[in-house]
Amino acid sequence: MQEGLETLRQELAEFAAERDWEQFHTPKNLAMALAGEVGELAAELQWLTDEEIRQGLATGVLRQRVAGEVADVFIYLLRLADVCGIELLSAAHAKVVENRVRYPVEKARGNARKYDELADEE
Amino acid sequence: MQEGLETLRQELAEFAAERDWEQFHTPKNLAMALAGEVGELAAELQWLTDEEIRQGLATGVLRQRVAGEVADVFIYLLRLADVCGIELLSAAHAKVVENRVRYPVEKARGNARKYDELADEE
Amino acid sequence: MQEGLETLRQELAEFAAERDWEQFHTPKNLAMALAGEVGELAAELQWLTDEEIRQGLATGVLRQRVAGEVADVFIYLLRLADVCGIELLSAAHAKVVENRVRYPVEKARGNARKYDELADEE
Amino acid sequence: MQEGLETLRQELAEFAAERDWEQFHTPKNLAMALAGEVGELAAELQWLTDEEIRQGLATGVLRQRVAGEVADVFIYLLRLADVCGIELLSAAHAKVVENRVRYPVEKARGNARKYDELADEE
Repeated sequence: MQEGLETLRQELAEFAAERDWEQFHTPKNLAMALAGEVGELAAELQWLTDEEIRQGLATGVLRQRVAGEVADVFIYLLRLADVCGIELLSAAHAKVVENRVRYPVEKARGNARKYDELADEE
Repeated sequence: MQEGLETLRQELAEFAAERDWEQFHTPKNLAMALAGEVGELAAELQWLTDEEIRQGLATGVLRQRVAGEVADVFIYLLRLADVCGIELLSAAHAKVVENRVRYPVEKARGNARKYDELADEE
Repeated sequence: MQEGLETLRQELAEFAAERDWEQFHTPKNLAMALAGEVGELAAELQWLTDEEIRQGLATGVLRQRVAGEVADVFIYLLRLADVCGIELLSAAHAKVVENRVRYPVEKARGNARKYDELADEE
Repeated sequence: MQEGLETLRQELAEFAAERDWEQFHTPKNLAMALAGEVGELAAELQWLTDEEIRQGLATGVLRQRVAGEVADVFIYLLRLADVCGIELLSAAHAKVVENRVRYPVEKARGNARKYDELADEE
């Protein structure tokens, strides 16, 4: 894992250990916490138009809020991966490789259908 | 941003650009996709006990499934941060600093109350 | 509770009991299942424009898919409320009463700010 | 639809119309709001054990909080179904019928595998 991500992973592990929070950090509990944080992120954007979001991200308060929620999601995701013994970057790279096969450029271009529905069009 | 994460961010941006998917990758749409992937992650764990999860992660199929879902969450999170112009590692580090203040070791030890409820006990 | 909802609540309780699924239907597990189903609902809509959704709901396949996901969310929500001893309609009515106070028509009209932010404008 | 649910549906529609909120209540926005509320529900339960939840639901504060979140989920779900022209109880009944076929008692008893994995064991 890259240094920045590895440093953060260690910081989060120490943060939990110092507070005796490892007892709470089971995979299920962390998955629920992740759902909670993604919900908070959705709540920041839910009533805004794309244009309002674009402006809000450019000028300030919304940007700080979204950055805070994105950070919370990332923290719980990294912590969940850690307690599961999963290395985030490796898992993501494996998925990108898989997605290149599932979504060939020529078939996927300009449409957002799921890979198992792309085949129907052959 | 660290090299590994930065490389992945670029790969995801190119992946979207090659497929003309940038039109779909608005902050709102990506936040919904994130909720979808976190839901799939929760679905992998929802009926299992902590012990079943521990064993499943050690021995195989569950590990692969959870790794795949964790990867999907990470990919959409990194992509969302990117289109919002937010740098994931910086945002996470800022949040860790904030959390050290919100959750002082001596008050937070062994309990999982939210920071705005910790103060009630002084 | 109204007859239709009460009948469904009983059917779901029997469905679980017949399959010896009560052991799985803890509040936490059902909350995770709910997150999973809401994620599937989001996934049906995430890449579509409002206009595409309007047309899709009118003409067929999308309508069936969304109805199926909405049903799944409802089923887990009703089941969760039941195992928690919470009566859905009563809880919802109490919340509507609360929301009438939180969001007075004259202040809330045409804006989607949260109630604790409406006060800032007085 | 049953009277209680139908009354609530109408109240929610009027609540939105009086506040000129129909413009915000698109299917996508309501699906995001639903994800937000399910996240808040998960957050109430995420660090508690099953036994702590059982006690908390019996004695008070947790019961009120969970009831409030369950109500919020229900309100957005009913509102989403309404703007999509989907009748919640009918959709749920159709799904229960489907689930009786997918999960025959003798095969599903005591295990929580998904229907498409039950077949593997024949």
